[in-house]
Amino acid sequence: MKGLTLGQGSGGRLTQSLIADLARAFGEGSPREMEDCALLPEGMAVTIDGFTVSPRTFPGGDIGKLALCGSINDLAVRGAEPRYIALSVIAEEGFDEEELSRHLSSAGRICRDERIRLVAGDTKVVPRGAVDGLFLTVAGLGLPRRRPELAMTNLRPGDSLILTGPPGRHGAVIASERYGLATEGLKSDCAPLWDLLSPLLDLPGLKTMRDCTRGGLGTVLCEWTEAAGLAATIDEADLPVDEGVLSVADLLGFDPLYLACEGTALLALAPEEADQALARLRSHPLGQEAALIGQITDDPLGLVEMTTLAGGSRIIDMPVGEILPRIC
Amino acid sequence: MKGLTLGQGSGGRLTQSLIADLARAFGEGSPREMEDCALLPEGMAVTIDGFTVSPRTFPGGDIGKLALCGSINDLAVRGAEPRYIALSVIAEEGFDEEELSRHLSSAGRICRDERIRLVAGDTKVVPRGAVDGLFLTVAGLGLPRRRPELAMTNLRPGDSLILTGPPGRHGAVIASERYGLATEGLKSDCAPLWDLLSPLLDLPGLKTMRDCTRGGLGTVLCEWTEAAGLAATIDEADLPVDEGVLSVADLLGFDPLYLACEGTALLALAPEEADQALARLRSHPLGQEAALIGQITDDPLGLVEMTTLAGGSRIIDMPVGEILPRIC
Repeated sequence: MKGLTLGQGSGGRLTQSLIADLARAFGEGSPREMEDCALLPEGMAVTIDGFTVSPRTFPGGDIGKLALCGSINDLAVRGAEPRYIALSVIAEEGFDEEELSRHLSSAGRICRDERIRLVAGDTKVVPRGAVDGLFLTVAGLGLPRRRPELAMTNLRPGDSLILTGPPGRHGAVIASERYGLATEGLKSDCAPLWDLLSPLLDLPGLKTMRDCTRGGLGTVLCEWTEAAGLAATIDEADLPVDEGVLSVADLLGFDPLYLACEGTALLALAPEEADQALARLRSHPLGQEAALIGQITDDPLGLVEMTTLAGGSRIIDMPVGEILPRIC
Repeated sequence: MKGLTLGQGSGGRLTQSLIADLARAFGEGSPREMEDCALLPEGMAVTIDGFTVSPRTFPGGDIGKLALCGSINDLAVRGAEPRYIALSVIAEEGFDEEELSRHLSSAGRICRDERIRLVAGDTKVVPRGAVDGLFLTVAGLGLPRRRPELAMTNLRPGDSLILTGPPGRHGAVIASERYGLATEGLKSDCAPLWDLLSPLLDLPGLKTMRDCTRGGLGTVLCEWTEAAGLAATIDEADLPVDEGVLSVADLLGFDPLYLACEGTALLALAPEEADQALARLRSHPLGQEAALIGQITDDPLGLVEMTTLAGGSRIIDMPVGEILPRIC
């Protein structure tokens, strides 16, 4: 018997292989073609995500807000306007009803703010010990507002890479809570991104976008270059920085590049449109730290390289093992 | 602190109140108006369900098949043709990969047989102890094939009630496995119902349909009459019977009327179309035991009454507490 490892849930290489098994069982093609959100021929976009975050409440959010933002952002980065959600609640016998109500309310608040309707729900209560507290699964439905479709396969050498904020804030917060660190001022970036990203959808040179969740910025860059058969370079000096993230990462030995974001996206677009995109992003409260961090290249080795602050060069590889379980 | 009880997950009265809390948190109306499956103005139907069944493999199916059938049936009973699913997998660290693969394969088999595509997926692996093995959540998407819409509020006094097979087979199987009974020949009714039910959609007098899952036939009857402000009578002598279900129910003290089905539906339709509906149902392998079991009435007390085999009368009330946890 071969048992599942936490690494298979961490968003890196092992997760890819688990998803490949899943796709195979359903007779679907290579999961490389599977984006986080599907565009259906009937004109709707759909995404699904399970949320198991621990702790359930953290600086900047809770499992309810996180679940909504995760779904909204999966739709938003594919250019789909979030419209409906379906929510499945699995709770443990004895779970505090007030806490449940708090998490549902914060999910509900995001729905109201973003004009999204809850259209279907399911609740299961399982015996004590069968689940750790509360898991939520959200399916998000939206309306595609972008033609041609955004997709990793649109990437071309020379495309500019823009990051909408500092990487790793959500992961750093969860790590810091988990290890009992008090990191002043550090908050999860957990936020709905449709309002920030939708003004970019009329830029014809916009190629693709992705929120840097499990596996962080590093994993997204590796997935993009693999899917497109290209390479990328980024410059450490250009990365937006959150000092809190750096100190948590330093203390715990994490690399911020692989720490999850929940309200920060990577964008690729034609270089002549980069300034315009940056200006639009920076005019929004969630995009004030947006920065041009590098570009797509056609380096034949297909690597993601980072010019370090020290002036050297470092390969950004897809993470293989566990990073931090139950980040989302 | 008030903690959740297993009864809140059992599909009866307490589940209703939990779902009402959920709807309130999202600013949605009364959950009485919330059917198991929503019809969106964009012309799609959507449903979501979490699956936590224990044991995961049982006579007649497993968690993978069950998850698919549950979604398909929620769509089918609203007259929507199942087309796509999105699947969220939450598995425990150390979970046997071969077992996972078996469950995904049985889900995949149903997809292929029913011409449904997996369009989005998510996998999470949580640390040992954070979940009991494997939970699946499925969002199902379909195309409505019925105008006017099927809904509980279409019910009128005199409508015939047809049950497509004997009640309680899924619940009896799970109970029998859980309590270590060997019940020869007893199998879960777990099956996809679109193929059985879709030929009825052109009957103009068809009012509503429901698969009798958590809470069983008794709960569906109570929900229907409450939602429509009507009453119902059924005749025990007309109920299709599975001897295996009766003996498990007898041994364990369960009432088959409240035991879950996963491939058996209740239908309400104008009495003049009942014969035609029965003929169509019985011509399908899954509907050979279909029977006319009673009718909707306008009894002012709003009760569901059953004429018993002994010739007496019994009230079928909405169950309040726990029936059998982790049935689905």
